[in-house]
Amino acid sequence: MIALCGGVGGAKLAFGLARAVAPQDLTIVVNTGDDFEHLGLSVSPDIDTVLYTLSGLSDRERGWGRTGETWGFMSALRQLGGEDWFNLGDRDLAMHVERSWRLRAGESLSQVTARTARTLGIGTAIVPMSDAPVRTVVETAQGPLSFQRYFVEARAEPRARAIRFEGAEAARPSPAFAAALDRRDVAAVVVCPSNPYLSVDPILAVPGVRDRLAALGAPVVAVSPIIAGQALKGPAAKLMAELGAEPGVLAVARHYRGLATGLVIDQADAGDAAALRAMGVTPHVTGTIMHSDEDRTRLAQETLRFAADLSAPPRAVAAHGGP
Amino acid sequence: MIALCGGVGGAKLAFGLARAVAPQDLTIVVNTGDDFEHLGLSVSPDIDTVLYTLSGLSDRERGWGRTGETWGFMSALRQLGGEDWFNLGDRDLAMHVERSWRLRAGESLSQVTARTARTLGIGTAIVPMSDAPVRTVVETAQGPLSFQRYFVEARAEPRARAIRFEGAEAARPSPAFAAALDRRDVAAVVVCPSNPYLSVDPILAVPGVRDRLAALGAPVVAVSPIIAGQALKGPAAKLMAELGAEPGVLAVARHYRGLATGLVIDQADAGDAAALRAMGVTPHVTGTIMHSDEDRTRLAQETLRFAADLSAPPRAVAAHGGP
Repeated sequence: MIALCGGVGGAKLAFGLARAVAPQDLTIVVNTGDDFEHLGLSVSPDIDTVLYTLSGLSDRERGWGRTGETWGFMSALRQLGGEDWFNLGDRDLAMHVERSWRLRAGESLSQVTARTARTLGIGTAIVPMSDAPVRTVVETAQGPLSFQRYFVEARAEPRARAIRFEGAEAARPSPAFAAALDRRDVAAVVVCPSNPYLSVDPILAVPGVRDRLAALGAPVVAVSPIIAGQALKGPAAKLMAELGAEPGVLAVARHYRGLATGLVIDQADAGDAAALRAMGVTPHVTGTIMHSDEDRTRLAQETLRFAADLSAPPRAVAAHGGP
Repeated sequence: MIALCGGVGGAKLAFGLARAVAPQDLTIVVNTGDDFEHLGLSVSPDIDTVLYTLSGLSDRERGWGRTGETWGFMSALRQLGGEDWFNLGDRDLAMHVERSWRLRAGESLSQVTARTARTLGIGTAIVPMSDAPVRTVVETAQGPLSFQRYFVEARAEPRARAIRFEGAEAARPSPAFAAALDRRDVAAVVVCPSNPYLSVDPILAVPGVRDRLAALGAPVVAVSPIIAGQALKGPAAKLMAELGAEPGVLAVARHYRGLATGLVIDQADAGDAAALRAMGVTPHVTGTIMHSDEDRTRLAQETLRFAADLSAPPRAVAAHGGP
């Protein structure tokens, strides 16, 4: 199983998948388009969100970062006149400092991530989409903004015109991602409920990824990050509108056309099921909001069963759809 | 006025000097032999001690680091299996992170230090002895140890055989130190009560410094870091014994022979005054323990008056010593 994953929503489903699937059968591929260098530190927000979520260290109330976080560093940084638009918690800093010196010492992002996951007791493989730098840039009415400047500093307020992934052309899938793409026994590809433009597209922009995912012959199912025209968190719906689509599950399905043949949608969007079918996308309607660990595991299990059904012989589908 | 200064004791007198002398007339030259690279960060412990002390940010109870410090970073670092033998407080980290990226961006240690001092509201010039890396190495029975490995990790326990300053031969005084050494109006040179071997010797090891200090023609007075055979803090007395001297103010005077002609000693060592005079070193006996800001200022003022007396025409001295 391969899961493509970005920020907070994606990490929640990844948590469920890690509970539902044996470690050797799951590779969680994480977006690194959000990565950036800040104050000389290498920050990988999506990787950290997945690491914190899977190790139970994430802050559920704030919705990002680590639980039990403190802010002494930021307060002292402000006092020194340092750049304070990006919040770095004291505990979170340990991750960035460790990563930064190890990268500088020649370790790859894959190696650093694997060691950290191991240390935090995570058995499932969490792998960056690529070890080469890919940097998401949002073209806005105010000019190009690097991802974190757009997302954090400008609070995703500027109107987006286009999104590009600098460095993607030269990037290659990370070794563990490439190995997963080479397996013959991949049961399913799950696109987590992450921002399609900002979290999943960077992964798909790595040359060869799209074709190799299709060539697996496994069902590809996405879980919609959009519920009733809105994203639970983040600018997915706003971006959708700005980039010319009506925010909703149909736009999600269209976005993943040629990749996902199944889409898990929320009960709130059950009315779009027929339209999805008409597009050739099989819908699965369920509750997609994940409050508890049980929600995460249940949604993961349902998604996996849905994917298994999709890959069942067409005969079974015909039986349901017959006269 | 030029003050040579190292760790906590030195910083206390530097605080007093900064109160007693107009900013334009005082250059506080700080040891950088303790500097090191840790977890990819550039740490300058003595510079930070002086910055924290002069800005009122130092922790007086713990005796090092910043007041109001928290330790979330260290706790998370331990959880990640990172190197935890050197304590980095959350607030203190802001200093190291800011310094590290600025140095990497091409600023000099002098520039970074000057900016930080300004930001913290310090008017007096705090300057590194050199912008080139000089690294103190302690030769011990267990082999050579870099300064922090010796001082912090090994708690200064290994027996020292010799001390050397790697990089010193190639170092030059920092621009502001060099400018101070070029002034014709230096009223005095004060060697603060810092460890002679570990804090002051590295400064004197920068080529030309010793000769240029002597060439100023100003009185050079030291304040003894040893009181009744003991250092208030740190391994100065232990090192003295290991390097073959009997710990005491006479050994301090001998150590600074050819440099300091006056030595401020504590009342506890008044009995050594005659022996000091016999060595050609003028003693000044007073209370040298600095508990309060007032102690610091009083000792600084006394030291400055003592230096002024030393440089007074010999006639005055003869009047006192006459029959």
